[in-house]
Amino acid sequence: MQSWSQFIVEKKAFQNFIILLILANAVLIGMETYPSIYNQYGSILNVLDIIILAIFTIEIGLKLIASEPSSKFFRDGWNVFDFLIVAFSYIFVGSSFVTVLRILRVLRLFRTISVVPSLRKLVNALLMTLPSLGTIMLLLGIVFYIFSVIGTVLYSEVSTEYFGTIQHTALTLFQMITLESWASGVMRPVMEEAPYSWIYFVTFILAGSFVVLNLFVGVIVNNFEKVEKMELGQDNGEEELKQEISHLRTEIKELKELVKN
Amino acid sequence: MQSWSQFIVEKKAFQNFIILLILANAVLIGMETYPSIYNQYGSILNVLDIIILAIFTIEIGLKLIASEPSSKFFRDGWNVFDFLIVAFSYIFVGSSFVTVLRILRVLRLFRTISVVPSLRKLVNALLMTLPSLGTIMLLLGIVFYIFSVIGTVLYSEVSTEYFGTIQHTALTLFQMITLESWASGVMRPVMEEAPYSWIYFVTFILAGSFVVLNLFVGVIVNNFEKVEKMELGQDNGEEELKQEISHLRTEIKELKELVKN
Amino acid sequence: MQSWSQFIVEKKAFQNFIILLILANAVLIGMETYPSIYNQYGSILNVLDIIILAIFTIEIGLKLIASEPSSKFFRDGWNVFDFLIVAFSYIFVGSSFVTVLRILRVLRLFRTISVVPSLRKLVNALLMTLPSLGTIMLLLGIVFYIFSVIGTVLYSEVSTEYFGTIQHTALTLFQMITLESWASGVMRPVMEEAPYSWIYFVTFILAGSFVVLNLFVGVIVNNFEKVEKMELGQDNGEEELKQEISHLRTEIKELKELVKN
Amino acid sequence: MQSWSQFIVEKKAFQNFIILLILANAVLIGMETYPSIYNQYGSILNVLDIIILAIFTIEIGLKLIASEPSSKFFRDGWNVFDFLIVAFSYIFVGSSFVTVLRILRVLRLFRTISVVPSLRKLVNALLMTLPSLGTIMLLLGIVFYIFSVIGTVLYSEVSTEYFGTIQHTALTLFQMITLESWASGVMRPVMEEAPYSWIYFVTFILAGSFVVLNLFVGVIVNNFEKVEKMELGQDNGEEELKQEISHLRTEIKELKELVKN
Repeated sequence: MQSWSQFIVEKKAFQNFIILLILANAVLIGMETYPSIYNQYGSILNVLDIIILAIFTIEIGLKLIASEPSSKFFRDGWNVFDFLIVAFSYIFVGSSFVTVLRILRVLRLFRTISVVPSLRKLVNALLMTLPSLGTIMLLLGIVFYIFSVIGTVLYSEVSTEYFGTIQHTALTLFQMITLESWASGVMRPVMEEAPYSWIYFVTFILAGSFVVLNLFVGVIVNNFEKVEKMELGQDNGEEELKQEISHLRTEIKELKELVKN
Repeated sequence: MQSWSQFIVEKKAFQNFIILLILANAVLIGMETYPSIYNQYGSILNVLDIIILAIFTIEIGLKLIASEPSSKFFRDGWNVFDFLIVAFSYIFVGSSFVTVLRILRVLRLFRTISVVPSLRKLVNALLMTLPSLGTIMLLLGIVFYIFSVIGTVLYSEVSTEYFGTIQHTALTLFQMITLESWASGVMRPVMEEAPYSWIYFVTFILAGSFVVLNLFVGVIVNNFEKVEKMELGQDNGEEELKQEISHLRTEIKELKELVKN
Repeated sequence: MQSWSQFIVEKKAFQNFIILLILANAVLIGMETYPSIYNQYGSILNVLDIIILAIFTIEIGLKLIASEPSSKFFRDGWNVFDFLIVAFSYIFVGSSFVTVLRILRVLRLFRTISVVPSLRKLVNALLMTLPSLGTIMLLLGIVFYIFSVIGTVLYSEVSTEYFGTIQHTALTLFQMITLESWASGVMRPVMEEAPYSWIYFVTFILAGSFVVLNLFVGVIVNNFEKVEKMELGQDNGEEELKQEISHLRTEIKELKELVKN
Repeated sequence: MQSWSQFIVEKKAFQNFIILLILANAVLIGMETYPSIYNQYGSILNVLDIIILAIFTIEIGLKLIASEPSSKFFRDGWNVFDFLIVAFSYIFVGSSFVTVLRILRVLRLFRTISVVPSLRKLVNALLMTLPSLGTIMLLLGIVFYIFSVIGTVLYSEVSTEYFGTIQHTALTLFQMITLESWASGVMRPVMEEAPYSWIYFVTFILAGSFVVLNLFVGVIVNNFEKVEKMELGQDNGEEELKQEISHLRTEIKELKELVKN
């Protein structure tokens, strides 16, 4: 049973079939968003969706069997992701939370990443750069929290929409760090009542941009190093040089012995 | 006939004449957009345009003859581009699609790229970086599609202009990834009806920017590698070192033989 | 007394306790910004704040004693920062400047940086890149001042809000260099009265972006060099090569003496 | 006379005095922009300005004498700049073009760059990167012209403000390439009348950003190379290795001769 599952699961045709199914699923989900199509063909779309869900269930079942013990299957984050997406589809299937169910269906499309190897490798690589950015993200968090509190203390009464509570201010600061309408939409209206508020805003833009810039640089440096490690051309060259020199050495040693005798 | 065409086509003066003609064409096309000039000198401009088109036709004809068999001519994408631009000008010349004809005339200016060698090389280099970005662009496509569906499902009734259909949402997401009015224009109006929608928007900005940043890094790394390969200075240095050491080796071998005898 | 203070101050548990206290302080300060919580529990929050301030005072007192003479304590900028933050809290504690007091309390959260070693190192590193950017920031300052004066001379009457005085213009230029609403909000309204003003705006965007871009490049290059110096892998390899060659040399010298005899 | 001028001109104190004068000039020009100050002290400011202009004239006169023949003086672009700024101040001094005169006075502040050596070197370095970006800026120019014509042909009647003439469209495209209000301000209003216009806008954003990104990469690569050339550490290491090896060679040659005899 297990070896048969492994045989199926590892077949190229099986993987391609799953990719095709996810694509079909994507098209179905896209079509469902058009009310005219949904009203006319809604029931057909639903049946197709149940069929696809059934096949996904079988697929995951086979993979589970193929990788006995099951703990081995759940060691890979992507497998856990696949399992949860399918499991949650069943939990909400009878419920009336249509929107939740629909979003779960959309999230199934993320399975493209777990199924296509090159995408899986890329996303793994992208996620792996995140921990190395830990300290600078912590710094960004501290800057955000401090400016959120200051902003709320100073301007909660000037502009309730932007600085009403800490949550509102944090969202406003996130908007400002993307430089979107930070002056025309946020600073200038506040300045009409609090003329010196520009100090707060300009300080945040300067500090925030500087930290974010260094965050970006961190990502870039990280990527460069990875690429350089993958190339390794340089080090190889040096390795060869070292070998050449050690060859020289042995030959000189032989010479010495020749001269001695 | 063929050798004569080749002689003409490869002459520097001929190429410069074509560049000059494209420039003249550019000026004419620019002048045509001013209604006052067009109304007064429209017929002259039209005659000049026909003359230029005729010369372009002759030019491409000569190039076709020069590179017998014609399949050789069409192997270069830029030649195909040149040919199609001129051919389409004839197809629409009698028709009443004035706008189409005018845009075809403008596209002729892209011939500057195919005619000036340094531009041609640059654009070829830029286009060549695209395939290496394939996987990350596929990832971006998946993220776009998933967020398009979710956005349409959740907010199609809140904001028809921005999230009415999948196409509308995709365009809105493209606007958001350029960070243009993503908060002031898109998120905040939606938040008035759906207060928790900020989760959707902030998630997309974070995920999208991160992927796009890595796309940019990809382009940068790509360019650096190209530049480094073009320089090759480093490797050269190592190559010389290796040669020096192998010279040493032969000399030591000679020494050995001297000692032996 | 001093050695006992040193013993306490250098204990890991003591440092963790201070970090915990700063976190508690952060939560308290956050809660204070909600009027509903402040009105009900204001007095409790105040008492807790006084307790935290007292512990911070003891902590800094211990550190002062631990690092006799006190001049040694104040040589580190972060210690001065810690000291001032606590000292100012006492100065304003009786006063009626509630807002000032509150902001001082928030600034205490910056102590996270001075207390967590990895954050301290990161911020020190970020601040250290600033001096190397001195010349280009001076250039940016000159460009800003010149464009501020020109903008004020030319458009102070066209748009008082944006170009009324040099300070207003400088703020507008800062907004423009972040590209925020520079055209829709600033240039286009001015162009309605001064049609040729686009020359001023486009020149500033081009010059400013070019200088800022090079500023960014400066930061990036700086960071790369730091990373490269930290790695040192390359130079190490060369160092080894040199050693190998000098070994060869001594062996050849020995050979020479052998042959001579 | 000439040697005396050279002596003065090259004195550190003289250069510092000129820098101080430019700073004083900057302050005066700044003060003039405030109507209240100008109305009260306008005549004094004018006298001070004439004195400064006189000293600048003497300075340039001395420099001219110091570097006989005068053609040598004008070979340096910065000297020409200094000369023109002072000369133009005289041309307009009697005229009623108060604004022109004021702007000329502001431009004098650019003399800080020509006088402070580190700034001069930086700006020279920045300007020197421009020619290497020639081809890609030509490409950007072609893209701009083509999209300007197409935009004017298609949308001159839909939105006169943004696409009325080629100049208007070019300015709009410049605004769009900075991503400022490209969607909310430009595309969406046009889309209301021409629903398919998003093709034009998205194409331009994609093509423009890609070219500009590569322009930026060009600047960055350029700067990195300059920095690397300035370091030369790497090459130096290799140079030393080569010397060591050639030392080895001569020693082996000596050995050979020893063995031969």
